Amino acid sequence: MINVQEARQLIDENCCSLRVETLTLLEANGSILAEPIYAAIDTPPFHQSAMDGYAFSYENWDKKSNLTLVGEIQTGNFSNTVLKANEAVRIYTGAPIPPGTDTVVMQEKISRDGNTIQILDDLLVKGTNVRPQGSQTQKGELALQENQLLTPVAISFLAGIGVNKVKVFSKPTVSIIVTGKELASANDEITEGKIFESNSIGLIAALQQLSINPLSVEVVDDVEEEIEQAISNQLSSDILILTGGVSVGDYDLVPASLENCGVQKIFHKIKQKPGKPFYFGRYNQTLVFALPGNPAAVMSCFYEYVVQAISSFTKKEYFNKMAFPLAEDFNKKAGLTFFLKGKMGQNEVTVLNNQESYKLNSFAVADCLIEFEEDKENFKKGDLVNVRMIL
Amino acid sequence: MINVQEARQLIDENCCSLRVETLTLLEANGSILAEPIYAAIDTPPFHQSAMDGYAFSYENWDKKSNLTLVGEIQTGNFSNTVLKANEAVRIYTGAPIPPGTDTVVMQEKISRDGNTIQILDDLLVKGTNVRPQGSQTQKGELALQENQLLTPVAISFLAGIGVNKVKVFSKPTVSIIVTGKELASANDEITEGKIFESNSIGLIAALQQLSINPLSVEVVDDVEEEIEQAISNQLSSDILILTGGVSVGDYDLVPASLENCGVQKIFHKIKQKPGKPFYFGRYNQTLVFALPGNPAAVMSCFYEYVVQAISSFTKKEYFNKMAFPLAEDFNKKAGLTFFLKGKMGQNEVTVLNNQESYKLNSFAVADCLIEFEEDKENFKKGDLVNVRMIL
Repeated sequence: MINVQEARQLIDENCCSLRVETLTLLEANGSILAEPIYAAIDTPPFHQSAMDGYAFSYENWDKKSNLTLVGEIQTGNFSNTVLKANEAVRIYTGAPIPPGTDTVVMQEKISRDGNTIQILDDLLVKGTNVRPQGSQTQKGELALQENQLLTPVAISFLAGIGVNKVKVFSKPTVSIIVTGKELASANDEITEGKIFESNSIGLIAALQQLSINPLSVEVVDDVEEEIEQAISNQLSSDILILTGGVSVGDYDLVPASLENCGVQKIFHKIKQKPGKPFYFGRYNQTLVFALPGNPAAVMSCFYEYVVQAISSFTKKEYFNKMAFPLAEDFNKKAGLTFFLKGKMGQNEVTVLNNQESYKLNSFAVADCLIEFEEDKENFKKGDLVNVRMIL
Repeated sequence: MINVQEARQLIDENCCSLRVETLTLLEANGSILAEPIYAAIDTPPFHQSAMDGYAFSYENWDKKSNLTLVGEIQTGNFSNTVLKANEAVRIYTGAPIPPGTDTVVMQEKISRDGNTIQILDDLLVKGTNVRPQGSQTQKGELALQENQLLTPVAISFLAGIGVNKVKVFSKPTVSIIVTGKELASANDEITEGKIFESNSIGLIAALQQLSINPLSVEVVDDVEEEIEQAISNQLSSDILILTGGVSVGDYDLVPASLENCGVQKIFHKIKQKPGKPFYFGRYNQTLVFALPGNPAAVMSCFYEYVVQAISSFTKKEYFNKMAFPLAEDFNKKAGLTFFLKGKMGQNEVTVLNNQESYKLNSFAVADCLIEFEEDKENFKKGDLVNVRMIL
């Protein structure tokens, strides 16, 4: 049986080549750029007033005379009339200063009498209150680097420099197959021997957290033909997630069904708890994750392994991982890595109760998974442990 | 002019009463519960085998005899036949143990000869490998508290205990009005004096980050009638965001237009940079945020103030705020709070270049805003500063 580190490495090695797509800015919100972006225009596109005030030529001004007001330029308008020495135009924030001017004096720092303007700003120098053309970004300049996360502000920035579409790394397509004769749908009454099916909704919700909507979600009985039919239908997805039927019991039909469908097993079983019977395989470029059916194992394996694969498609890091001090001693036997549900405090992380893999009541209020290494048995209060946030 | 703390308090004081709605679990993913949730059923709904193995009565077993196999219960099936002493059934993980049994021995820990089973597990005690009915949650038990965040795992947990719909705090409805005669749409050529409109797309993208789609987005000219028409159309939203035209210039028509539409001014101008001309008002229950038009001021005011208001509707905390050490000395004059674009490192936070409010190139790659208090002038490397994550 392999361990957690080997599993992670095998998943990485089998993750496929990156796919990119061209999206509008809003579609690309939250994605990672797959190309460097160069500014399509100078920004600002012209020498722009930074204030409401009066534009004039500081250079040609004799520093004694008053200025003569010869016009107005509202933001959004422009004027091509070249101003002479000691002439000024009324101007507003964001408007282009006219030819022959280089400086804007704020409206609060003049005294005006009809069309005569006296400057009352001793600190004024050439260029004051003017945003030079291209002073944010020049046409052709590298605006954002490849691999940059497109945040809302980055989206706004790109819109401002005339970029409308960008190449980003594509999200994978994901399909879900939930297996189990015992599963009742939410709209049914549960009869004896049945439980409410909850793994599909948990996985859909977790994919939504990553802005992914699954292509297909199927719930199938523990019948080999049905499982194989479902697998065959979904093997064109980038990622196929199955739950249940992956252990070694007489009705654990998933590994054999996957083999019958041509899926190549990469590994089956990891030295971990929960989720020991975890299976990972591959069919051409399709990654197949078959998770044990217990709800806590499903969600824990999703956050620990499936997210890793999704991340290899999108190049995006989804959940912070950090070393953090443990709130209380914790002991376990060596031999398995434990992933336990935790709750972050200000200065330490607490292991929650009810860690059994069939229980979700603690996991439901957890904000992180704490990883306790395979070979270590005793963890002391204050020891740094690896914590993966899941919010 | 009020300061940042006073502004925050005034926004809080004017935030409206909470609204709740009943949603399906997947619709409620990521929302905050507005009611306590009680389990609709026992979970597990029956005494359930935790293993593939053999169910029998440990209590009635004489601890010497072999067991006689009398049947099989596949997961999803059940049997009402009461087992006698020294009888066993083949059972699978998740199946209900039959009446008269209390314990499951793992299939790996027996030796079987036809229908005769010898137990080879010295550690077996009564109840081993059985998950008692209701051992996760009992019917009627408090399953999740009001104000709990509905994570994907919480969603799965609720589905498992028979809950399909939940009351959550509603997101606010949001409308956006962008004002400015200088604004060209992305599909236009920009002619002289114009710039590409980018504030609407930045705000839409930021709202998407919070899973909110604006009801309406309008771009209007600096013409009072047009602005008033747009405001009147949108005053039924919970939150109305305007950008531009909020300063004191001749064409800053937004404050007057809001007043003409009956909006009550709560404050206008904050001692802060960027975003000094920020306006906040209210019309009945509608909160009105009029942001200065410079792109960096828009996004900074959105994260600092509009998100605070959204949070008061949803009860959700969106962006972590923390004290973190500064990477380099930073000096400013007293009198204004500065919100500067920053980048988090492992152990310290760096102030980025190009902080002018008309520039977005640094903000586009920032992951946080750093708050430098109003009255302090000198911040030293290593000083703790307030950092708000924006990712």
